[in-house]
Amino acid sequence: MANEKENKKLVEDITSMDVDFAQWYTDVVKKAELCDYSSVKGCMVIQPAGYAIWENIQKELDRRFKETGVENCYMPMFIPESLLQREKDHVEGFAPEVAWVTHGGLEPLQERICVRPTSETLFCDYYQRAIHSYRDLPKCYNQWCSVVRWEKTTRPFLRSREFLWQEGHTAHATAEEAKERTELMLNIYADFCEEVLAIPVIRGQKTKKEQFAGAIATYTIEALMHDGQALQSATSHNFGDGFAHAFNIQYTDKDNKLQYVHQTSWGISTRIIGAIIMVHGDNDGLKLPPNIAPTQVIICPVMQKKAGVLEKADELCEELKKAGIRVKVDARDKNPGYKFADSEMRGIPLRVEIGPRDIENNQAILVRRDTHEKVTVSLSELSEKAAELLKDIQSNMYETAKKHVESHTFTAKTIDEMRSILDEKTGFVKAMWCGCRECEDAIKEKTGATSRCIPFNQEHIADTCINCGKPATKMVYWGRAY
Amino acid sequence: MANEKENKKLVEDITSMDVDFAQWYTDVVKKAELCDYSSVKGCMVIQPAGYAIWENIQKELDRRFKETGVENCYMPMFIPESLLQREKDHVEGFAPEVAWVTHGGLEPLQERICVRPTSETLFCDYYQRAIHSYRDLPKCYNQWCSVVRWEKTTRPFLRSREFLWQEGHTAHATAEEAKERTELMLNIYADFCEEVLAIPVIRGQKTKKEQFAGAIATYTIEALMHDGQALQSATSHNFGDGFAHAFNIQYTDKDNKLQYVHQTSWGISTRIIGAIIMVHGDNDGLKLPPNIAPTQVIICPVMQKKAGVLEKADELCEELKKAGIRVKVDARDKNPGYKFADSEMRGIPLRVEIGPRDIENNQAILVRRDTHEKVTVSLSELSEKAAELLKDIQSNMYETAKKHVESHTFTAKTIDEMRSILDEKTGFVKAMWCGCRECEDAIKEKTGATSRCIPFNQEHIADTCINCGKPATKMVYWGRAY
Repeated sequence: MANEKENKKLVEDITSMDVDFAQWYTDVVKKAELCDYSSVKGCMVIQPAGYAIWENIQKELDRRFKETGVENCYMPMFIPESLLQREKDHVEGFAPEVAWVTHGGLEPLQERICVRPTSETLFCDYYQRAIHSYRDLPKCYNQWCSVVRWEKTTRPFLRSREFLWQEGHTAHATAEEAKERTELMLNIYADFCEEVLAIPVIRGQKTKKEQFAGAIATYTIEALMHDGQALQSATSHNFGDGFAHAFNIQYTDKDNKLQYVHQTSWGISTRIIGAIIMVHGDNDGLKLPPNIAPTQVIICPVMQKKAGVLEKADELCEELKKAGIRVKVDARDKNPGYKFADSEMRGIPLRVEIGPRDIENNQAILVRRDTHEKVTVSLSELSEKAAELLKDIQSNMYETAKKHVESHTFTAKTIDEMRSILDEKTGFVKAMWCGCRECEDAIKEKTGATSRCIPFNQEHIADTCINCGKPATKMVYWGRAY
Repeated sequence: MANEKENKKLVEDITSMDVDFAQWYTDVVKKAELCDYSSVKGCMVIQPAGYAIWENIQKELDRRFKETGVENCYMPMFIPESLLQREKDHVEGFAPEVAWVTHGGLEPLQERICVRPTSETLFCDYYQRAIHSYRDLPKCYNQWCSVVRWEKTTRPFLRSREFLWQEGHTAHATAEEAKERTELMLNIYADFCEEVLAIPVIRGQKTKKEQFAGAIATYTIEALMHDGQALQSATSHNFGDGFAHAFNIQYTDKDNKLQYVHQTSWGISTRIIGAIIMVHGDNDGLKLPPNIAPTQVIICPVMQKKAGVLEKADELCEELKKAGIRVKVDARDKNPGYKFADSEMRGIPLRVEIGPRDIENNQAILVRRDTHEKVTVSLSELSEKAAELLKDIQSNMYETAKKHVESHTFTAKTIDEMRSILDEKTGFVKAMWCGCRECEDAIKEKTGATSRCIPFNQEHIADTCINCGKPATKMVYWGRAY
């Protein structure tokens, strides 16, 4: 009885997502011990279970970046005020939300410095000194670091005053090369999200209104959360030669002429962990795609005090490890029901249940986190079957998420249609747009939806802009967003 | 002629270490593109060649940490002033050198916050909330991050206002366990330095004067640089239950009694890159131990415009890669002499020279960075021979460094003897000490040397303290230090 209560309590603590999605999210973050509040308002403690996900994201992306010639480096975390102000659009975008350091030790600083909200200005300052000749190009640098933006309202992973990310910054000889790099990196993020995180994304370009401060083009990938809200999951910016002019970054070309470089930057942050939670999670808690899960398989011994049970669990653990699976034994002094519910709440993709009777029969039970399906397998086939199921779980999670996007993507030909869709449903609305800022603002005001992106895969839905009725130039994904 | 000049210039730019060791160090850092100055005084840009060394350090240590049950996490970079002040000794040690954030966005903060100089207070704050029962112990957390200390004078890697490090923070049920963890981590650092960085170290305990603010014991590893100065290379601190009392970190033990936890912290920083430079480098530049070198083998094609040369170089590169060697081809449009000198300056352990005549003879020339020895090998044996040489270079570099420590370690029985040693020579002086602070201060004043550590391997050199003549309690390593 007491045990049953304990198991139930574990799940009851998570608010149902249909009752209150925001509270469900906070409950999952907290119960799965992904992150915790800290004594600094708006900053988070990323706990080991959350950080291990980030480490896997880093490992996977870092490899993909380096394959394209990217090198890692580290820039200072501080930017002098005068340096931040060098590029006009950029400073306007970021100055209102930076944290200012005014004292070093016991003395006031001569010039105040901010904690980096992003590092374009630092990379430009460095490139200005490091780039002289076409031989020095391209420069494809990246750093893994934390940045600070003094936000008013914060939520774990989704919006916090400090967050972790990587920021790549490149400099090229030609505009064409910069454009290619911007596209290349966006596709790396998109492929990563789809293949590793099992999150389908829309690839496209931000409207001018939504683009990055100082960019000539911002590409984005947009994902749809379970509640039908969009989340901008990674961005890649083409700066043209704007920063190069502001920072005077020039090189001598092969004909001995001075030229300005063309630059890009691109980033993905710990925010993406919020997307993993909100795309895949359910009322039992977190649900991690096998390709990113720090623990892919958990072995739960049943009646573990009986002779031989824990030993067998450890033996199977070693066997699965050898097969390249990330696996752990839950040998805690808790009843099996608690452990089962706990493993589901923490989102572990696959569970192995093994007790004395299973050992007698030379078998174990495998339980999938995604479908809750149980299969009994002979121990001799365990690692083969586990690997197969993990693969299947990964693709099933992707397919499920894809279906959710499809069933929550609508088309509208008139502004009334769009409004009535968004009154009743949640998701993306595809609609035509003339391309002007006024209509974009009007659509937001009338429907509550912002432009998510101008997808690379354009469709022709109508001839005219949904707002002004003038000829349409683009099909746009609209939606409410985090 | 022009080419010869170019090669010579490359080396001439490095000041001879016998002329000016400090300038030699700066030249190597700059020429090998390890790090650069930034627009923020005292902060550095870690360039790709320097950062790649740090990545290898991280990879190797992270694996060793995790094998002992350490988990990674991430704490905020900010500490509210009130939190920093919670432990008396700790705040006294750090407050004079922290950077203060006073404004967030456009508004002044209600309480100023500092950028972490170290994170004991943040971990304590978290542990206080996360630890309730003996079941929650031990907690063995680590983070890789940057910290800020507002130093007056700075030098690349050795002392900068921001530097990268890892800081491990653990909480244990018993004093004994905390002591074991402190020792375990020190030994991990020492083994890592000796096995991977080829840097011999002295393992020991800091005197009370030199120990960390808030610790009951600080263990250290001390290395000897080429100029005979010591460098503290990593430290491990036992806090006992001091922080636990200050932060009220208690747990319920098995008998349902409240107990205070016992804590440790331990760290190694980018400073260790300075040690790699100053232990192994020579007048040709950097000299990297193969086990840490981002590029272990560089292939320099000779007469690379001749048909087949670059192709052969690429083919050998693939072959060496397959053998698990980190290898690159230098296909730049530069003459071979320049490339040879450049590869030496950048410290690449082994160079492969291959030209049309070598290809004809089915051979290549291997040149060691440590001894400049050249051997001609048949191409069929290349990867085998390269792997063998890398192993030999690693152990030879360690042995060479060890001999340097031995030939620069002296013993003194009187203060005059110690003074005269340090007047003429540079290095460690082993001498007896009574254990009191007054004598430690006096020895520094009389000889310029500080206590580096009380080595775990004690030797009996004399019966009495070198300063006061009273009975000695410890043998201490003394020296001038970075």
